[in-house]
Amino acid sequence: MNRQIRLKSRPAGMPAADNFEAVDSPMPALEDGDVLRRTTYLSLDPYMRGRMSDAASYAASLNLHDIMCGHTVSEVVESRNPAFRAGDMVTGYDGWQEFAVSKGKDLRKLDPRAVPVSTAIGVLGMPGATAYVGLLDIGQPKPGETVVVSAASGAVGSIVGQLAKVKGCRAVGIAGSPDKCRYVVEELGFDACINYKTDDLVPALGAACPGGADIYFENVGGKVFAAVLRVINRGARIPLCGMISQYNTTTDPGGPNLRALLVQRAMMKGFIVSDHADRFPAFLQEVTPLVRDGRIKYREDIVEGLDAAPSALIGLFEGRNFGKMLVRVSADPTRG
Amino acid sequence: MNRQIRLKSRPAGMPAADNFEAVDSPMPALEDGDVLRRTTYLSLDPYMRGRMSDAASYAASLNLHDIMCGHTVSEVVESRNPAFRAGDMVTGYDGWQEFAVSKGKDLRKLDPRAVPVSTAIGVLGMPGATAYVGLLDIGQPKPGETVVVSAASGAVGSIVGQLAKVKGCRAVGIAGSPDKCRYVVEELGFDACINYKTDDLVPALGAACPGGADIYFENVGGKVFAAVLRVINRGARIPLCGMISQYNTTTDPGGPNLRALLVQRAMMKGFIVSDHADRFPAFLQEVTPLVRDGRIKYREDIVEGLDAAPSALIGLFEGRNFGKMLVRVSADPTRG
Repeated sequence: MNRQIRLKSRPAGMPAADNFEAVDSPMPALEDGDVLRRTTYLSLDPYMRGRMSDAASYAASLNLHDIMCGHTVSEVVESRNPAFRAGDMVTGYDGWQEFAVSKGKDLRKLDPRAVPVSTAIGVLGMPGATAYVGLLDIGQPKPGETVVVSAASGAVGSIVGQLAKVKGCRAVGIAGSPDKCRYVVEELGFDACINYKTDDLVPALGAACPGGADIYFENVGGKVFAAVLRVINRGARIPLCGMISQYNTTTDPGGPNLRALLVQRAMMKGFIVSDHADRFPAFLQEVTPLVRDGRIKYREDIVEGLDAAPSALIGLFEGRNFGKMLVRVSADPTRG
Repeated sequence: MNRQIRLKSRPAGMPAADNFEAVDSPMPALEDGDVLRRTTYLSLDPYMRGRMSDAASYAASLNLHDIMCGHTVSEVVESRNPAFRAGDMVTGYDGWQEFAVSKGKDLRKLDPRAVPVSTAIGVLGMPGATAYVGLLDIGQPKPGETVVVSAASGAVGSIVGQLAKVKGCRAVGIAGSPDKCRYVVEELGFDACINYKTDDLVPALGAACPGGADIYFENVGGKVFAAVLRVINRGARIPLCGMISQYNTTTDPGGPNLRALLVQRAMMKGFIVSDHADRFPAFLQEVTPLVRDGRIKYREDIVEGLDAAPSALIGLFEGRNFGKMLVRVSADPTRG
């Protein structure tokens, strides 16, 4: 049987366990050209909340009883396609299920000897590409500038700050616990990190950004965004990547006063990484060696088994994860 | 004597008459190279509110008892500078006073036979250049797109919509009275105009922008801005020129939810026309013939005499003006 987790009902506010249903479906049958794979890792990401809703967003909503969507790393278990063979590790978008079948056009083969395969849905996957496109293409960092990033210990924010350092910038993170802040500074090499839950944000940002902020990579919205607007410099750039603080609100939280954008001639731009697929090869070419050489580090927060996915997704919105949130759906054959 | 109006005290909220003081100063004495002129027209503009405040803004605050600042059209009455002679009409930044003296480097000579001299501080001055830079350089309009502009009957907004039409766009205005809306459509040639005081904004915008809004030229902030964000298209551009609705607030009014920027991959950019002085020649070259040929129209709201300036400025914030707000400080020698 192929265990799947599907959307049972649409959440009002924070998703709850009963918005999901686990279903044991028949194993998919193979036709000529098909590739059958077993999911090894499933990525959990904030955008999934939007797919569960029927409000207009940047991607179509899931229908009720659809399999929950998501990026995956999988092992090919049977192939009737000459481009793949059993044992190949691949990455795709198979969603919350144990097995999947397709003609393979949606798959990219991975080399387990180069980097751990789980990176293909993290630092070297969609989250990493999001950091790359947002920081480099929209933020346009110049050496000596200061880059502030919220959700700094998360899958995207952690890469933004490390890429900023690679580009010669000062990197200032904002995160939600002392442990996360310590990790961001001591392990990832940010210059400073602010705890948004306990620090007085505007003075803390002033101290962490003595020359002001030239780039704010926005992941969260809410009070953090309003505070950073107080320290932006003339000509600041604000790649708008996400607003996780309001994904589960049921009333409109409004937003910050934008007078600072006017006074500082600042630019803000929303973006969705899937619009920038043409940048993916450049991203992989530039960032893969940085990951292999340890200049860009990453941390994974892995839960075991598909049935743990719903509560792990909820934890993501509560900031309970520490690092890239993954589900190990089945044993990783590339790890001893 | 040289009558001047100076900043007496800083307003809390809306400026009031007693924030200004009228002073009769001695006539300035001329030295070699000096140009003495008599102010004909003084421009009143929303940015002046910021100069009266001591809050940080994009230009230095006035000091208490400074002459109020402002763009002017003047007649040269005496010149010890070979580049000017009595009777020349010039434009400069002489502020709220009847006479001014300088070496003339701050002056630009006007040709009264080409267009009325008052245009030099309106449609062919700072307000027109603001419309030009914001719409063309930041907005990047393409034929067939829809441009929404707030304060549409005002000095900047009226030019934005007419330039949009010249560029082959649909122009939708937002203004504050039936008379203003009628003027915007019937005289200026906008395709539609919404009365923000009486219309239900989101449905009215939906009806006026059947294909959504590709550019929103933002002059006002507040509820108008929040409503337009509901109809922006993917890839929309939002030149942020002003937020007049909050220039006189004493508490932070917050701002709109920016989720639409993310979902629509939209770009917002604050700008100040004085940063774009290099674009002024291109602006004059392109827009002067349009004004001369009547393809771009303008309307002036003129009050008589320098002492009327304070209440006229207050009227600007209350939307009492209808067209570009000017003070006729002395008779226009180029008009019969």
